[in-house]
Amino acid sequence: MKATYNPGLDGVIVAKTAISEVEGWNGRLIYRGGHLIEDMVDRTFEETAYLLWYGALPSAEEARLLSDRLVEARPLAGAARLALAGLPAGVKSVDGLRTLLSAQGAECGGQTPSMADAIAITAVVPTAAAACYRRSQRQEPVNPRPDLGHAANFLYMLTGYEPDPIAVRLLQAYMVVMADHALSPSTFTAQIVGSTGSDLWSTVIAALGALKGPAHGGAIAGAAKMLADVGSANNAEVFVMRTLAGNGRLMGFGHREYRKYDPRARILRELCKATSPEFYAVAEAVEKITLRELARRHPDRRNSTNVDYYASGVLARAGFPPDLFVCVFAAARTVGWTAHVLEYINSENRIVSPASEWTGPYPEARERN
Amino acid sequence: MKATYNPGLDGVIVAKTAISEVEGWNGRLIYRGGHLIEDMVDRTFEETAYLLWYGALPSAEEARLLSDRLVEARPLAGAARLALAGLPAGVKSVDGLRTLLSAQGAECGGQTPSMADAIAITAVVPTAAAACYRRSQRQEPVNPRPDLGHAANFLYMLTGYEPDPIAVRLLQAYMVVMADHALSPSTFTAQIVGSTGSDLWSTVIAALGALKGPAHGGAIAGAAKMLADVGSANNAEVFVMRTLAGNGRLMGFGHREYRKYDPRARILRELCKATSPEFYAVAEAVEKITLRELARRHPDRRNSTNVDYYASGVLARAGFPPDLFVCVFAAARTVGWTAHVLEYINSENRIVSPASEWTGPYPEARERN
Repeated sequence: MKATYNPGLDGVIVAKTAISEVEGWNGRLIYRGGHLIEDMVDRTFEETAYLLWYGALPSAEEARLLSDRLVEARPLAGAARLALAGLPAGVKSVDGLRTLLSAQGAECGGQTPSMADAIAITAVVPTAAAACYRRSQRQEPVNPRPDLGHAANFLYMLTGYEPDPIAVRLLQAYMVVMADHALSPSTFTAQIVGSTGSDLWSTVIAALGALKGPAHGGAIAGAAKMLADVGSANNAEVFVMRTLAGNGRLMGFGHREYRKYDPRARILRELCKATSPEFYAVAEAVEKITLRELARRHPDRRNSTNVDYYASGVLARAGFPPDLFVCVFAAARTVGWTAHVLEYINSENRIVSPASEWTGPYPEARERN
Repeated sequence: MKATYNPGLDGVIVAKTAISEVEGWNGRLIYRGGHLIEDMVDRTFEETAYLLWYGALPSAEEARLLSDRLVEARPLAGAARLALAGLPAGVKSVDGLRTLLSAQGAECGGQTPSMADAIAITAVVPTAAAACYRRSQRQEPVNPRPDLGHAANFLYMLTGYEPDPIAVRLLQAYMVVMADHALSPSTFTAQIVGSTGSDLWSTVIAALGALKGPAHGGAIAGAAKMLADVGSANNAEVFVMRTLAGNGRLMGFGHREYRKYDPRARILRELCKATSPEFYAVAEAVEKITLRELARRHPDRRNSTNVDYYASGVLARAGFPPDLFVCVFAAARTVGWTAHVLEYINSENRIVSPASEWTGPYPEARERN
């Protein structure tokens, strides 16, 4: 076989999947069973997880059973509690989350991926993330509350207060639309780790490392910072023109797959509009001018608003500090990561072994010198 | 571009690299600068790390400076010490190592990959691995000894005793020949994580998750167990024939790239022969019969002894329990992982975005039902 140089793996199909499909040309994201995310957004996160893991929407009884299992697996075990106690003040929450997940997995995780592990990991991510953020602020962790749903309990553990229903609605909608997105870089990372026969916790910890990067899940905090810097809709025109003139980067625009408006961005934009008028005014003004300018400068490229842009407003309105944005993304995507790993290792499960091109000298050449 | 299904990424070049080259057809492994591993095996691990990181063998002064930096970064910081204290008795060392590395990185790691991080991670892996194994046995950790080299200190931290010079020589040779191997699945995992702009600790933690799998670094313990089960050279013929007749798997044979004898396996075989006559007698007998039978059954395939096979003997003779084998592999390969990530993000740094093939129903189809 002729080897081809393709570091971005453009056009290389690395899995056949029934978990989700990104129909970029058509601006659609389809979840397992053929559900458009627009039809999922008023569902609970638990129902969405059930769909992605098991292949069909749950009955009321099935949904209750899954919720019970998630509630049961929320608390941090002893290893994770001590790891938490060791984190220094000011630690980045995502680094703390990576550590606590590893400790929890070392103590409670199976060595072979299973649905029980998928549930246990998904259940504990919000607990660990909230505790790490509180630790970074020198606050004690808040224990999970079994009577609250997954999204509401996440917010409760962050503050210790009864969560605002609007915040719960925003967080749940965010987590539903972010629960899966085909073979994103983090999901592909999880799949490779799973293909060697590793455990499910290791796959999620690896994926979290990929998600953390500013070019992946870390971009939400970048968009939030940019819009905070703009401050008011009146500054939008000057800000965009100056940034583009200085070859600066406008955060929250462009996606490799969507050629129409990202359906997740549309959903989150509407939620921002309905719940965060101040944020929305700035974001809408910057978006309008940015899209106008990008279309003028690159008429061939379809630079469109991506999901990070309005996600930053939704997560801020829900009550999350920017330091936690990537952890909330991880809390949602854990469902997708685990669903893809379980699907892959139970079907193809080919270990990846890519090639590389040698650019160094050969021994003979060296010896001749 | 026409999308092609290629989950194993056969023949896809994902990086141009000058770190190492696997010349499978020729049975050679070439390190940076054109050094055959046969010419590296009597070097120290520190010299090998210098070569792979900086591109040339160090002067005596450069080697001393790197050794000093490694010694300085050996101790566990506060976060890792508390994470260690939280690990349950009987924990798998590799799960503990993953946790302590994450804690150490959360406390001391940079958020952008650097050579300083590469050195810090490489320095602390043996400390963390030895401490986790001792913890699993309910023993206190042994603090690193600054007067010992990297390999000798690793053995010292495992037992608290002055290490046997033969054990040091075996461990050092093992770590030198295992320090890099082009884009192995774990190295590719590290590269993907690095390509999103994540930190270097996250890349190594992700790679460790991939290495842990029985189809990757976990295979050494599998080979050890198999040869222990055989017990004596007299049992070799019956064991091999029975395993093949029962469609069982003979551990330590076959490699996707080497079409001649794996040069690392040859080096480790000679070390076994010289230092572990009992192990060698069994291993040689099983190997001879296995290669004869595999050649007879699959004359088209070149099934040859892989590095895991004799590695299991070398690591056991050096004093490691099977539970630590994959951690020792990680201690060596951390050099390669970090070298590849630093090389990639400073050159191509294209984020991977592979495709997937949708096997589920489309929304229209669902609605028609």
